[in-house]
Amino acid sequence: MIVIGSGPAGEKAAVKAAYFGHSVALIEKEEHYGGAGVQTGTLPSKALKETALFLSGKYHKGVFGVDKELRRKAGVNDFMYRKNVVIENFGREVGENLRNHHIDIFHGRAEFVDQHHIRITGHLEKILFGHNIIVATGSYPFHPKNIPFDNTRVHDSDSILTIKRFPKSLCVLGAGVIGCEYATTFAAMGIKTFVVNDKDKILGFLDQEISKALVAQMQKDGITILFNNSVTAFDLPDLEEDDLRITLASGDILNVDMFLFAAGRRGTIKNLGCEKAGIKTGEREAIIVNEKFQTNVPHIYAVGDVIGFPALASTGMDQGRVAVAHIFKSGELHTLTEIFPYGIYTVPEVSMVGLTEENAKSGGLNYVLGYSYYHDIARGQIMADKDNGFLKMVVEKDTKIIRGVHIMGNIATELIHYGITLVKDRKTLDEVIATVFNYPSFHDLYKYASYDALGNLFGKKLKKSGAQVRLNQM
Amino acid sequence: MIVIGSGPAGEKAAVKAAYFGHSVALIEKEEHYGGAGVQTGTLPSKALKETALFLSGKYHKGVFGVDKELRRKAGVNDFMYRKNVVIENFGREVGENLRNHHIDIFHGRAEFVDQHHIRITGHLEKILFGHNIIVATGSYPFHPKNIPFDNTRVHDSDSILTIKRFPKSLCVLGAGVIGCEYATTFAAMGIKTFVVNDKDKILGFLDQEISKALVAQMQKDGITILFNNSVTAFDLPDLEEDDLRITLASGDILNVDMFLFAAGRRGTIKNLGCEKAGIKTGEREAIIVNEKFQTNVPHIYAVGDVIGFPALASTGMDQGRVAVAHIFKSGELHTLTEIFPYGIYTVPEVSMVGLTEENAKSGGLNYVLGYSYYHDIARGQIMADKDNGFLKMVVEKDTKIIRGVHIMGNIATELIHYGITLVKDRKTLDEVIATVFNYPSFHDLYKYASYDALGNLFGKKLKKSGAQVRLNQM
Repeated sequence: MIVIGSGPAGEKAAVKAAYFGHSVALIEKEEHYGGAGVQTGTLPSKALKETALFLSGKYHKGVFGVDKELRRKAGVNDFMYRKNVVIENFGREVGENLRNHHIDIFHGRAEFVDQHHIRITGHLEKILFGHNIIVATGSYPFHPKNIPFDNTRVHDSDSILTIKRFPKSLCVLGAGVIGCEYATTFAAMGIKTFVVNDKDKILGFLDQEISKALVAQMQKDGITILFNNSVTAFDLPDLEEDDLRITLASGDILNVDMFLFAAGRRGTIKNLGCEKAGIKTGEREAIIVNEKFQTNVPHIYAVGDVIGFPALASTGMDQGRVAVAHIFKSGELHTLTEIFPYGIYTVPEVSMVGLTEENAKSGGLNYVLGYSYYHDIARGQIMADKDNGFLKMVVEKDTKIIRGVHIMGNIATELIHYGITLVKDRKTLDEVIATVFNYPSFHDLYKYASYDALGNLFGKKLKKSGAQVRLNQM
Repeated sequence: MIVIGSGPAGEKAAVKAAYFGHSVALIEKEEHYGGAGVQTGTLPSKALKETALFLSGKYHKGVFGVDKELRRKAGVNDFMYRKNVVIENFGREVGENLRNHHIDIFHGRAEFVDQHHIRITGHLEKILFGHNIIVATGSYPFHPKNIPFDNTRVHDSDSILTIKRFPKSLCVLGAGVIGCEYATTFAAMGIKTFVVNDKDKILGFLDQEISKALVAQMQKDGITILFNNSVTAFDLPDLEEDDLRITLASGDILNVDMFLFAAGRRGTIKNLGCEKAGIKTGEREAIIVNEKFQTNVPHIYAVGDVIGFPALASTGMDQGRVAVAHIFKSGELHTLTEIFPYGIYTVPEVSMVGLTEENAKSGGLNYVLGYSYYHDIARGQIMADKDNGFLKMVVEKDTKIIRGVHIMGNIATELIHYGITLVKDRKTLDEVIATVFNYPSFHDLYKYASYDALGNLFGKKLKKSGAQVRLNQM
């Protein structure tokens, strides 16, 4: 088997196949391993987010009697420090993992010669034969012509990781996952941040109430979001002390120090020679696959960002594993689960699994909602919730089955895992209520939301001076 | 229905009954609400732990390029600040919760007159009639005669919350949950801490490998644990600048500034008049109950710490709910689940659910183990694991069913909730592997441990220069 690319999808596919005794070659065009998952995307942006939270003290300020301050002013090198450690460690570990499994590693560019042969170009030129081939080449940031990328002040989501100074102000184009994550990270560092968004909402796949709550929180944290807008003209001045002058479709002009383009990535299929193998590709340079991640050529598979949405490291890894299980008929992981979480590492974090309220409505589901709030639960009080965090449950009315869980707040991307099992196994409110949780824990959110949903089901909301009583405290 | 005590067990019982329309009176001997859960135990100790982590910077030092320091030296008032905020807020909220549910609240001491009448003594003396009565009086710290408690330098777990200065050094007697939590909290504050323990291990109910790992971590953090030992003589000097002189059974002498007795609590049944109602009590002044939390008098129930082990706020709350469901035959929560988590809020945290390895052995289970380590997973690398944290799974060999999960490390008390569902629903390793987790997340520990267990099952451990390869990175 040949795997092209050592990002999360390629690594997991290669290692799984090798682990079960198959002969595997892996081709990586860079010297370092891990692709966007390790080098330019997933891990670096999460490390920067944690760094921003630490440096700014956002979650601790005013909570513990006496505050802390930085031993000295943090420079951009401090900002990048943890990110670099993580990239280096994890990149090395991916390489070790591949070598430990006796995978043949080739560095160079891969190109299909035909449906079973790949030419590697680089220091060593070579043609490899594979019974099966997995394309895991990932994605790259799209560069529209009207943006004068210079990797110094005008960045894509790769080059933003290499900034040599902090921006004095920042414009982010695009309010998808990457755009929102970077916007909130830089805003947490105290940098005035604008987000230009071509729609009237952000992260359209989220439950709209969560999406709106995140917008409100971003605005509270000083981010200006310009909805239904786009960039029509872009002036990059000669002098670094002069602002970029960005003209918007609305006619407004943004004068900012730096710019980040986060409005789209494309599958990395250029020079891959898909046409020589007869592999069909689609929009945004994505390879088209079926639910086993087979391309139209049955022994050639594609996994990870190169097949497009959802383009998450987590789903990519599992796509890799599913493809390998299918190739070698190892009898597990027949298809990727349909129930999987979205984790958005914004400040605050957002995570969801299952149906949104909009899904429930459009699917004609008879549903009831349950809410709980970080500031109501004991661990939220101990840590002093600063995000107006909450959990929202979408529950089937007749059966009390929990169909969707949506969280915005501290460690939301961790807390969702309990919700995955609820939704996957079609658990009811009664089952959550019959479960003992550690106390105090953020997981109390699930119990409080379940009681709230029960209260809504049975119409038992007490009223207190006009406001709804928090009856979930039962 | 009458409820005696407004701690976690009493509050939840009272509110649940009132919510479903029953007439409820609650008697609380203190002016403030919440019992040990809010006032002297669960929440205060957890707030102190979080404060200690913040003030010491234990989890952040050296992680993010530049360190932080306190704006000024932290005093004991800073140490107590968050704890006091939490006690005040949560105590008030418990009171509001009771009042919002139209529960009749009486402040005073409660005493059985007979099986249906309770005399309240205090400012207002009164006799109440209850069809059903729930005793949720909690527990109090036992005071052995040979310890000269003075609430200034020689403390129990109540008075330690009122210290007016930091101890220069501390001896904790008892290595149960309370002893270990306070020992690690004070040690995190940089205070030299000794633990005197009458057994050869700590927290005997834990998986022994976890228990030993916690001991190692405590020792690494500067705590000296004196095993198989006890206090035989105790000199409290006249002058505060002179050390306490504590003679141990081993003949060794400890010279320390402060002392905390954490070797036992007793059920609060003194002056309750159990004998007048004919309620049977047992060892350690605990009320004896059946699995519905009924005493030998069928309409009198007891819940929470007053019935003894496990004496956790979490289990107490659910005991209260189960008792009420039984009284009013509301058809849910028939018995408390047998699968519940233990959460130990030490530094590092420990949490477990299901079988320990020792349980598996003694039960004759054919089992295999799976391990994963914080330092191997991406989020562990981002946050720089400082605890040698790990997750251990006990798996039934023939079926691959996960029977126990044990975690030591960052947010272990949160992470266990996913494990509860695995153990409760008898999930297999394959089901964990077929689940998509957010990436990066600490929950990756479950996936890595599952792959490790699979590897152990199939004997597929690769070796690398003598050391075991981390094959769980598949």
